[in-house]
Amino acid sequence: MNHIPAKTALVVSAHSADFVWRAGGAIALHAAQGYNVHIVCLSFGERGESAKLWRKGAEMTESKVKAARREEAQAAADILGATIEFFDIGDYPMRADKETLFRLADVFRRVQPEFVLSHSLKDPYNYDHPLAVHLAQEARIIAQAEGYKPGEKIVGAPPVYSFEPHQPEQCDWKPDVLLDITEVWDKKYAAIQCMAGQEHLWEYYTRVALQRGVQAKRNIGITAKKDIIYGEGYQSIFPRVTENLG
Amino acid sequence: MNHIPAKTALVVSAHSADFVWRAGGAIALHAAQGYNVHIVCLSFGERGESAKLWRKGAEMTESKVKAARREEAQAAADILGATIEFFDIGDYPMRADKETLFRLADVFRRVQPEFVLSHSLKDPYNYDHPLAVHLAQEARIIAQAEGYKPGEKIVGAPPVYSFEPHQPEQCDWKPDVLLDITEVWDKKYAAIQCMAGQEHLWEYYTRVALQRGVQAKRNIGITAKKDIIYGEGYQSIFPRVTENLG
Amino acid sequence: MNHIPAKTALVVSAHSADFVWRAGGAIALHAAQGYNVHIVCLSFGERGESAKLWRKGAEMTESKVKAARREEAQAAADILGATIEFFDIGDYPMRADKETLFRLADVFRRVQPEFVLSHSLKDPYNYDHPLAVHLAQEARIIAQAEGYKPGEKIVGAPPVYSFEPHQPEQCDWKPDVLLDITEVWDKKYAAIQCMAGQEHLWEYYTRVALQRGVQAKRNIGITAKKDIIYGEGYQSIFPRVTENLG
Amino acid sequence: MNHIPAKTALVVSAHSADFVWRAGGAIALHAAQGYNVHIVCLSFGERGESAKLWRKGAEMTESKVKAARREEAQAAADILGATIEFFDIGDYPMRADKETLFRLADVFRRVQPEFVLSHSLKDPYNYDHPLAVHLAQEARIIAQAEGYKPGEKIVGAPPVYSFEPHQPEQCDWKPDVLLDITEVWDKKYAAIQCMAGQEHLWEYYTRVALQRGVQAKRNIGITAKKDIIYGEGYQSIFPRVTENLG
Amino acid sequence: MNHIPAKTALVVSAHSADFVWRAGGAIALHAAQGYNVHIVCLSFGERGESAKLWRKGAEMTESKVKAARREEAQAAADILGATIEFFDIGDYPMRADKETLFRLADVFRRVQPEFVLSHSLKDPYNYDHPLAVHLAQEARIIAQAEGYKPGEKIVGAPPVYSFEPHQPEQCDWKPDVLLDITEVWDKKYAAIQCMAGQEHLWEYYTRVALQRGVQAKRNIGITAKKDIIYGEGYQSIFPRVTENLG
Amino acid sequence: MNHIPAKTALVVSAHSADFVWRAGGAIALHAAQGYNVHIVCLSFGERGESAKLWRKGAEMTESKVKAARREEAQAAADILGATIEFFDIGDYPMRADKETLFRLADVFRRVQPEFVLSHSLKDPYNYDHPLAVHLAQEARIIAQAEGYKPGEKIVGAPPVYSFEPHQPEQCDWKPDVLLDITEVWDKKYAAIQCMAGQEHLWEYYTRVALQRGVQAKRNIGITAKKDIIYGEGYQSIFPRVTENLG
Repeated sequence: MNHIPAKTALVVSAHSADFVWRAGGAIALHAAQGYNVHIVCLSFGERGESAKLWRKGAEMTESKVKAARREEAQAAADILGATIEFFDIGDYPMRADKETLFRLADVFRRVQPEFVLSHSLKDPYNYDHPLAVHLAQEARIIAQAEGYKPGEKIVGAPPVYSFEPHQPEQCDWKPDVLLDITEVWDKKYAAIQCMAGQEHLWEYYTRVALQRGVQAKRNIGITAKKDIIYGEGYQSIFPRVTENLG
Repeated sequence: MNHIPAKTALVVSAHSADFVWRAGGAIALHAAQGYNVHIVCLSFGERGESAKLWRKGAEMTESKVKAARREEAQAAADILGATIEFFDIGDYPMRADKETLFRLADVFRRVQPEFVLSHSLKDPYNYDHPLAVHLAQEARIIAQAEGYKPGEKIVGAPPVYSFEPHQPEQCDWKPDVLLDITEVWDKKYAAIQCMAGQEHLWEYYTRVALQRGVQAKRNIGITAKKDIIYGEGYQSIFPRVTENLG
Repeated sequence: MNHIPAKTALVVSAHSADFVWRAGGAIALHAAQGYNVHIVCLSFGERGESAKLWRKGAEMTESKVKAARREEAQAAADILGATIEFFDIGDYPMRADKETLFRLADVFRRVQPEFVLSHSLKDPYNYDHPLAVHLAQEARIIAQAEGYKPGEKIVGAPPVYSFEPHQPEQCDWKPDVLLDITEVWDKKYAAIQCMAGQEHLWEYYTRVALQRGVQAKRNIGITAKKDIIYGEGYQSIFPRVTENLG
Repeated sequence: MNHIPAKTALVVSAHSADFVWRAGGAIALHAAQGYNVHIVCLSFGERGESAKLWRKGAEMTESKVKAARREEAQAAADILGATIEFFDIGDYPMRADKETLFRLADVFRRVQPEFVLSHSLKDPYNYDHPLAVHLAQEARIIAQAEGYKPGEKIVGAPPVYSFEPHQPEQCDWKPDVLLDITEVWDKKYAAIQCMAGQEHLWEYYTRVALQRGVQAKRNIGITAKKDIIYGEGYQSIFPRVTENLG
Repeated sequence: MNHIPAKTALVVSAHSADFVWRAGGAIALHAAQGYNVHIVCLSFGERGESAKLWRKGAEMTESKVKAARREEAQAAADILGATIEFFDIGDYPMRADKETLFRLADVFRRVQPEFVLSHSLKDPYNYDHPLAVHLAQEARIIAQAEGYKPGEKIVGAPPVYSFEPHQPEQCDWKPDVLLDITEVWDKKYAAIQCMAGQEHLWEYYTRVALQRGVQAKRNIGITAKKDIIYGEGYQSIFPRVTENLG
Repeated sequence: MNHIPAKTALVVSAHSADFVWRAGGAIALHAAQGYNVHIVCLSFGERGESAKLWRKGAEMTESKVKAARREEAQAAADILGATIEFFDIGDYPMRADKETLFRLADVFRRVQPEFVLSHSLKDPYNYDHPLAVHLAQEARIIAQAEGYKPGEKIVGAPPVYSFEPHQPEQCDWKPDVLLDITEVWDKKYAAIQCMAGQEHLWEYYTRVALQRGVQAKRNIGITAKKDIIYGEGYQSIFPRVTENLG
């Protein structure tokens, strides 16, 4: 009996919650479609995106913050149906050396993703985000090279999508894909609620999903007409190859 | 017995040969997939794109040029498997009044296209091309309006794609879709050969197709790996709505 | 006793509801600050933005639609504290001849606005919107010319701002101003509710205001820290002249 | 004895003084090199760029303004060594019908220019300027078409350059050519002084020339090192074809 | 008796003279308005912007050059009314490690600036300039993070402005703010004259100030009409938050 | 007897074959015109662009791959008439430290190039390419600085051109120069054939040359009309300084 291996996807997240706000719908949706979705969290967002924990005062330490954020991220990944690993390379500022690059290239080789999700190419509010997507892109290129660990199976040219940054226009981010996440919204919102320290963002990203849902409905043809409520926007970095324009 | 109506597509071409060079593959491919593809030729390219005919000298007249170009375009459409109509609004310069706009809006209502193909938004070498795509876009908007000919069936929001201009970088045209037209290349090349007066372009657009084919192969993932030889590039004007990023 | 004339502002709206969704906060806010704000509605949006009315069926006529939309727009302007006039030049498609241009230039001369609000420069979903802002800009230029109706008081160079389109990224609209409209939100929402036929947009634009409010809080310095809940985004077309960068 | 006809150039100026401020150096320089340079002034700038004349009060009329501006422009052209003609199509707003387009296309055919100078593609301060360059570009395209007045000698594809607008960055104008006009600066400044009504611009454009001169010196290699004092900036609309990159 | 602390501003300058040419007016103006303006000079410009000193020949050393440039910069800062410190991280090429980043983040925390001035994001003529503004931006982000030196007072989100590079269009720098520096021009010019080794730039930047002054006058409304002679241009990196558009 | 030194040019190539595909025509053409053209290969492309060699299996080693690629590159340079040196800094990923930067700056000083050729500023498919052009640009800046190795002859400001990347539109590369390489095409094609391991690219880049040749013919004026068959496209990074626009 033949076994067809599941399709896979890779998400590269700068901080421990980014993949939830920005790509939680895509993760849950593709997991529901049978994809093995794997998430790499480059850092826990311990310095820059854990304000509420730090405000607890002097007893708080970086390792406590990291542990708390790891737990939340793991719980969110579980809800979304994805696996997750943590590179723990630090944030604010994030820096990536060659070792980290090769580590991520090795993930690409292991996962052999059908598509990749990461941050926007530009974000004047957050320098870790562009670094993450650039790292993901360069790792993808390394993983394509026959001369890197010769003999290993190289990767193809999976499409890469930038998920939505916090202030999209200021990041020159322009979605060319609107993903209908209506059927998995409950999972995304459950994952969002794992982020106990960032409650102020729960409703913000609910509204983002509603707006993208309305916009999705405004961009479909007659035969596609259906009930979309929640959406996520993505910007393609590469052209897509297809046999149908409909 | 139920009848599922065929899906449809609409191509808006400024001159009588544009749809062949730039979208012949997409037309043949979707026709082969069962789409009813309809082409609107706004002009015959009688003034600006019929140099060889005019060089025949004094006996040549505009109506003779038009007749010749119409015949070629009809033959090409036949080969590609599409229907075609001619608005005959003149070229070099092309101008469109409200009547032409409504005429095209009515075509949108009649055809109810799943997708639309037209020119690039900018072309410093050819002012008729941007006019054609702007006309197509505005006609699409009119056809969406409940208050235009109230009671008629309005159109949805079909995606619009710009096909490839002659000098793509100078037109700020950047393909985000690469269409694999390998299986219909013979039809496209047969249609190209209908354009007797523009033989200098036959090999030019063959090379375009080969280059886009190579590029398509460079933009696909592992599971999609297949033999692409000929391609056509398209630039989306609107975001696409989807449930899958793979 | 000296009388200092009130400052003034001018809003140029393509359709009868645009000024409400997109600039209702700015209008109410400046009215509350003592500005005389004047709105020009170029059309009633009778064809393209009155779907609910048209769906009432055969008894509906264009003049009934116009009357209904005029009433709503007038009510909204009253709530916001602005004056309004209707050019009634038609929509879908909107076209403006020289007469309309001069009519609007005359409004500029009469109002002598401190600033001008209108649409985004680009909108692939709506061709009337860019036309409106281009008309506004050209009318402003005519009104600055000494040789147009020589002897009349010309206008200065008031800043022009593009208000937010429905799908901001698709319109290449990038806000460089975030206006705090928290204190007048109740008025804006009351004006929004005048638009009986477009109830689906009420919550959409409430969410827009909440998102812009959150973003505004993310873009202020220490001393400016205050409670912003609702915002409106604007894109400046001209550089602003100032004596303070703080 | 063979006669080699002089090379030619064409300048399309929206108003009667534009060619002086923006391209006076190029005109004088190429005239000095033996080119026949021909200027088309589409209008006299009678409404929008003749403020000082209009401020003379009620005795001033449009025909007096035009006559004064014509005289100045003719004097400037004489100094620069160019021929000039006036289309007198009006300004503020400028509008061009098909007849004007064909009239300009006929100038292209008659002049057979080696290169063309006109305005920037965008100018939010002045809508006549972009109209002029668009008209020039479309006329060039018409003049290239074999089917326009068949039998006449068509034009080639002469490069088109946008000269410098008043506020370059606001017009998204970016010079890719810096022309050394040092040796003809005296002529340009003499031509500038013909514009009696716009004395406030004399020193403005002198400073522009000095800045472009300094910038030119900053963009030359070792062997080209020479004494440049005055410059003019141009933006190419088309790629240049060459056999040398040095 | 209550003491209201002075507002503050921070200027990050790659080389020792950049803040003078590019932001001297803003510094003097805000100092005159009561701001405490603090300048960080990342380097002395000892290698790349001290040509005249180096041309003195073999007796010149890097430490002599640095001392001379420091003295000039200190004198200029004194005239402008600002404090200054020197990071001395080297130039041509400038490189910044994490230690430098944290050092600058600590300055942000100490100064708590209302606004920040630095270089343009791009400069093909000078790679130290973009590095400086990127360093400033990342330091600002670090200084905002609760997890960086927890317990310290974090900074808000002060606006950041790019001052004018030497060849503005080539740097894709587009001013959206024109600052009227007429009343402090004498101070700016006095500070400029401290730069003994770069006399060729004195008149260049005087002309820049005059051009920006003229442009400022072209961008103001009726009630703002006033006598502006000298200006400085700035490009905002973030949207401004305001309650008034007039 | 006076000796006029030959003009020189510098090519900075990330991998050992880039200069052939992308600039082989320019190299051969200028060599034929008497230029001394010098090529710096930063790496051999041993990891990322030597797939065919690696596929030979386990006996292949990095040093064997390098030796093979060096030989090919040397042979190609010989055919084109250029000198070549290899920095051997590694590829996939390429990284450049200060030592490499200074080494390249020293090449600039030694060569004193009239112009410089390197990669496009952006390339999402290949991160070594942008690194190479950025390194070239920064080295050029260092070589211009009087304070770098004081006393040495500094370089001027030679123009820098980006040659054509593999997928031009995806790299936002837009040619503004089309170089006629017809007369040296045989040399370029002979050099191309040295790249034994990349035979799939031979016809790809032949087609590129043919397309650029056709486009060149479409961008020339009457008097320049001549027979161009093969071309290469270049994008200027700096404005060119000239005394003639024809």
